Amino acid sequence: MNREYVEELCRKAAQAKFAVQECTAQKKNEVLEHAADLLTRETDNILAANAEDVTKAEADGMKPAMVDRLTLSKERIAQMAEGLREVAALPDPVGELLDDWTLANGLRIRKVRVPLGVIGIIYESRPNVTADAFALTFKSGNAVVLKGGSDAIRSNEAIIEILRRALEDLGVTKDAACLIDSTDRADTGVFLEQRQTVDVLIPRGSAGLISYVVRESKIPVIETGSGNCHIYVDADADLQKAIPIILNAKTQRTGVCNAAESLVVHESVKDAFLPMLSDAMHRAGVKLYADDRSRVLLPYAEAATEEDYGREYLDLMLSVKTVSSLEEAIEHINRYHTKHSDCIITENQASADLFQRLVDSACVYVNASTRFTDGFEFGFGAEIGISTQKLHARGPMGLKELTSYKYLLNGNGQVRA
Amino acid sequence: MNREYVEELCRKAAQAKFAVQECTAQKKNEVLEHAADLLTRETDNILAANAEDVTKAEADGMKPAMVDRLTLSKERIAQMAEGLREVAALPDPVGELLDDWTLANGLRIRKVRVPLGVIGIIYESRPNVTADAFALTFKSGNAVVLKGGSDAIRSNEAIIEILRRALEDLGVTKDAACLIDSTDRADTGVFLEQRQTVDVLIPRGSAGLISYVVRESKIPVIETGSGNCHIYVDADADLQKAIPIILNAKTQRTGVCNAAESLVVHESVKDAFLPMLSDAMHRAGVKLYADDRSRVLLPYAEAATEEDYGREYLDLMLSVKTVSSLEEAIEHINRYHTKHSDCIITENQASADLFQRLVDSACVYVNASTRFTDGFEFGFGAEIGISTQKLHARGPMGLKELTSYKYLLNGNGQVRA
Repeated sequence: MNREYVEELCRKAAQAKFAVQECTAQKKNEVLEHAADLLTRETDNILAANAEDVTKAEADGMKPAMVDRLTLSKERIAQMAEGLREVAALPDPVGELLDDWTLANGLRIRKVRVPLGVIGIIYESRPNVTADAFALTFKSGNAVVLKGGSDAIRSNEAIIEILRRALEDLGVTKDAACLIDSTDRADTGVFLEQRQTVDVLIPRGSAGLISYVVRESKIPVIETGSGNCHIYVDADADLQKAIPIILNAKTQRTGVCNAAESLVVHESVKDAFLPMLSDAMHRAGVKLYADDRSRVLLPYAEAATEEDYGREYLDLMLSVKTVSSLEEAIEHINRYHTKHSDCIITENQASADLFQRLVDSACVYVNASTRFTDGFEFGFGAEIGISTQKLHARGPMGLKELTSYKYLLNGNGQVRA
Repeated sequence: MNREYVEELCRKAAQAKFAVQECTAQKKNEVLEHAADLLTRETDNILAANAEDVTKAEADGMKPAMVDRLTLSKERIAQMAEGLREVAALPDPVGELLDDWTLANGLRIRKVRVPLGVIGIIYESRPNVTADAFALTFKSGNAVVLKGGSDAIRSNEAIIEILRRALEDLGVTKDAACLIDSTDRADTGVFLEQRQTVDVLIPRGSAGLISYVVRESKIPVIETGSGNCHIYVDADADLQKAIPIILNAKTQRTGVCNAAESLVVHESVKDAFLPMLSDAMHRAGVKLYADDRSRVLLPYAEAATEEDYGREYLDLMLSVKTVSSLEEAIEHINRYHTKHSDCIITENQASADLFQRLVDSACVYVNASTRFTDGFEFGFGAEIGISTQKLHARGPMGLKELTSYKYLLNGNGQVRA
């Protein structure tokens, strides 16, 4: 364990946050553009470092899907550089005047958007997160402390060195971007204790990583990512509309948090709807796990267990549950979902309204695919993750969601009576 | 330990949150008005229950200041009732449309203000918090789970019984207001684990209680209350303006989080200013703890230790530190403050601007007393506490700060390409 090293690194970031906060939008954009140029120019060095990680991972028996996430290519590095340029092109959220009023005694109160300060990001073996997370946290005026997966350590070292050089070349302290350069798991534990210097922690990665961080962190955490998304086919659904929405939400991309994982069907439409569903899902290669009432209409389905309703399959699999009422559907969804995204298919306005009010998710849909829960689709121009908690930010998090606010109070001698 | 009892109570509140969320503003106001009537009508019963607590506390040797906080009177109960009526008179924050846009494909996205869900409040021996916290959490559409101090258990039981009766009389589930009716400290530990049912936890009370909750909670916490507030007298200060501001911030009320605890003085004004300060503070009975450079000008001052600069005295005591520059003042404040409220006294606009940008507090003042950091003074009409963290809400928290938002997405078959 390298306690002193981690603590010192976080302290340096806490000192650097003031310099980042003082950067003009133009300075920040210049840093991001320059970092993009350097990433492109240093492609060979990054690939060499990445090859070391990949060789070691393969020797250690890492699964091919994981090796793919770890592996960089010329194209992937070009995408990282392009990502930095896209963030540079976004408006600067810092300094926005959110409110402005004057008390009867003449004391003026302004509420202004400010950076959070120091953001910690904990992630796994995708080295592109190193550049992506830096771009978003820096543009929103924050210093960042990154802790990537051990498997990607050489790649992350190569990338952070370039980001820090870009900062330094433009006269900004390089401690605005810090990497905990360690493969010792205990150092992550030390990182989670740095409440005095780190303002917020955002874990990015598997459900296991996120729940570890939520459980152990002494720093406030924004929980992201886990999506057990439901689609409910109401008694008043347009069944022709339902199939393409479900197909899109389930199969357009399966390994993502906004993909549908569970289908809830009102019993009054099950006879008409489930055979249609069965055909469409069978053709798309989707395995169904269904309750007894629906399974008689789904020739290829297996029996759903209680566990199926709580699962985020992230695969061509879908659970099916029949309900007797809209209320039962809402109750079922609120019991099993992860508060991410859920949808009702209905032509009944009152049912749509009730569903949108009572389903306790960040994004509640009527007649559209859940796949739109995404910072880019929302028009935020960027995304650090999808928050599934209710404090601070909820749903897709862009640049504004990486800021806080402060009150500026200007007087001329006001005292309290 | 009563694990099952605590878990069951939180589950009941999580179920009740939907009923609260569905209450109209009028219904909520009726409940609050009725609760106020019942509190007044049941004054004698509340006083009898409170007398049991007070008798036990005195027998246990509780300090008189603490006994005073615990003790209710006819007037204090009338104040509690009046507090409920004041909250009823405030506008309902729930349902506010925060944003509304339509994607190119026709998918409409609305961002609406919604309740947080279930709020947990952990507090000490002030029984009035039971009614106050209920009023604010209920009006903002939330269910609440309360855990008060063991010393106030009979008083809290009497008050919660009345609040629950008021809910029931108006047809709202009484589980919208739950009290963990236990004096077993281990039950607080169980409460802190209820992340599945409780959305946010707000501790109210001593620094010890707050740091315990921050350290142990698995539920997201809003940290409130601790205020080591600074006033900096700049080189360009109007010294005549400084004295009344400092007197007000230090002495108008000493036991509160927005009182000043530390004075920072630019060396170029110390010869003119410190003798004025010494007189004023001596007359007001304020003890000074000063560094060597200032102590020669402060005949009654004692030597400040490093510890003094970090202390929230909550008493007629003030630390004094001399600095050589505005930058040193900002650095000193950012090292020792609790990110609550800090002030600069200056006539120099550039110095005021820099101070307001770089001091990392919820409220940064120019030429006014820090005592205005208060939900009522801000015009919020209510206050659950002063947040000293940067996630979610910062500074005074009123009704809006007890809400979250959700996205409502309405389409007619949109799928992602």
